[in-house]
Amino acid sequence: MARHTIFKPNESNLPAWSAKEFEAKLREKESLYHINHPYQTLMNEGKMNRKAIQGWVANRFYYQQNIPMKDASILANCTDVNARRLWVQRIVDHDGQSEGLGGIEAWLQLGEAVGLSRDDLLHNTHLLPGVRFAVDAYVTFASSASWQEAACSSLTELFAPTIHQKRLDNWPLHYPWIDSQGYNYFKGRLTEARRDVEHGLRVTLEHFTRRHEQEYALNILQFKLDILWSMLDSMWLAYVEEMPPYYNCSLNESVS
Amino acid sequence: MARHTIFKPNESNLPAWSAKEFEAKLREKESLYHINHPYQTLMNEGKMNRKAIQGWVANRFYYQQNIPMKDASILANCTDVNARRLWVQRIVDHDGQSEGLGGIEAWLQLGEAVGLSRDDLLHNTHLLPGVRFAVDAYVTFASSASWQEAACSSLTELFAPTIHQKRLDNWPLHYPWIDSQGYNYFKGRLTEARRDVEHGLRVTLEHFTRRHEQEYALNILQFKLDILWSMLDSMWLAYVEEMPPYYNCSLNESVS
Repeated sequence: MARHTIFKPNESNLPAWSAKEFEAKLREKESLYHINHPYQTLMNEGKMNRKAIQGWVANRFYYQQNIPMKDASILANCTDVNARRLWVQRIVDHDGQSEGLGGIEAWLQLGEAVGLSRDDLLHNTHLLPGVRFAVDAYVTFASSASWQEAACSSLTELFAPTIHQKRLDNWPLHYPWIDSQGYNYFKGRLTEARRDVEHGLRVTLEHFTRRHEQEYALNILQFKLDILWSMLDSMWLAYVEEMPPYYNCSLNESVS
Repeated sequence: MARHTIFKPNESNLPAWSAKEFEAKLREKESLYHINHPYQTLMNEGKMNRKAIQGWVANRFYYQQNIPMKDASILANCTDVNARRLWVQRIVDHDGQSEGLGGIEAWLQLGEAVGLSRDDLLHNTHLLPGVRFAVDAYVTFASSASWQEAACSSLTELFAPTIHQKRLDNWPLHYPWIDSQGYNYFKGRLTEARRDVEHGLRVTLEHFTRRHEQEYALNILQFKLDILWSMLDSMWLAYVEEMPPYYNCSLNESVS
């Protein structure tokens, strides 16, 4: 049976934080959001070449592909019809109501706007192993945790609107070669992420009420921050340091 | 339900490789073994400082800790009593027959020999997120794949005796500050890995007989090579480039 490996603190005699204090602790984690990773900084400052932008778009696509399945695992573990009614909207948003719609499609259009082929994206031709392991860890967690724990792991969305807005502000200036239709994903997430996170935050504040549970929730959010950061670490080595896996080996075959 | 994400080729009309050809294809993968990662090269050439050696020992310990559980998942999925009789030996070797014995204990002694505390090792104080995700991917694979597929993923052991022998040859010269009792793990694996891999190889050659299955087996071995390589990538960033996760962030808390 697959399991996740997030550290769960033992019960303690420490008093629980108030909802307000607990929310503040969750929001404090913003300083570890991947907006601070040097990869994002260089992208936002216009210092990345075409290959590094393409590498990011292609690798991040694997995350996008997996999000609806991650959310379906949350639904599959959720006995609360009201929560499911809200959560299912994420799957619909991401997959779209019909062909040509939805977040995955919008990301494919971003891919085309930066010069990648739809086919390479769909077949993960450029996917780095470290990115795969990080994203798979997120999917495994969502399927093996309770739905409230998985909801808590989605709270990096608290910090997402800023990162999308920054891209919309800076990329058109720095990267005039990117077609503007590529930016629809970021635009859409400005409002979607705000609505989604309101629900995720309410679930988290209501579910984790004792101190050791609240500390566990912080570890869950940290785990998700680690995933996002770790994805960029792999891309940093591959596209900035130019040390993709096996760059120095004679037999160099891809995994898929 | 957790799942693994190794690409499984469709049936094809291509003729199967003979057992001899198939084995040669598996052995060809040696050139992608992590012995070629620059982290291993620098370690073997005596060019790593104490912190980088310690970082490797501490992070690799997480792999050691998880191996018996990985092997127990293989047993749990195996209906063949003869195969279980052979495979269970790996768990016994690694956990040891009693306190103070076994591979995990030998690795703890290596940790002490390089100046780490047993407690820090056991609590994964130095564990990097990217290493955790890679190792967890291996454990998840073993629990969600058939036991023969999981056996195939262990075939990096084909290449292990060389790497252990290299350490035994070079480390005492380059790192006189490491206590010689630290080398018992490497010594033990010289013979254990040879015996284990004989069985794993036989299972693989007998189980994957059609061409698309043999190609799938190569993808499985590649997945395992990716895990080992990816672990060193994370350590490279942290201990050589000195970019551990969140090195540039204000709030810097550990995940556990």
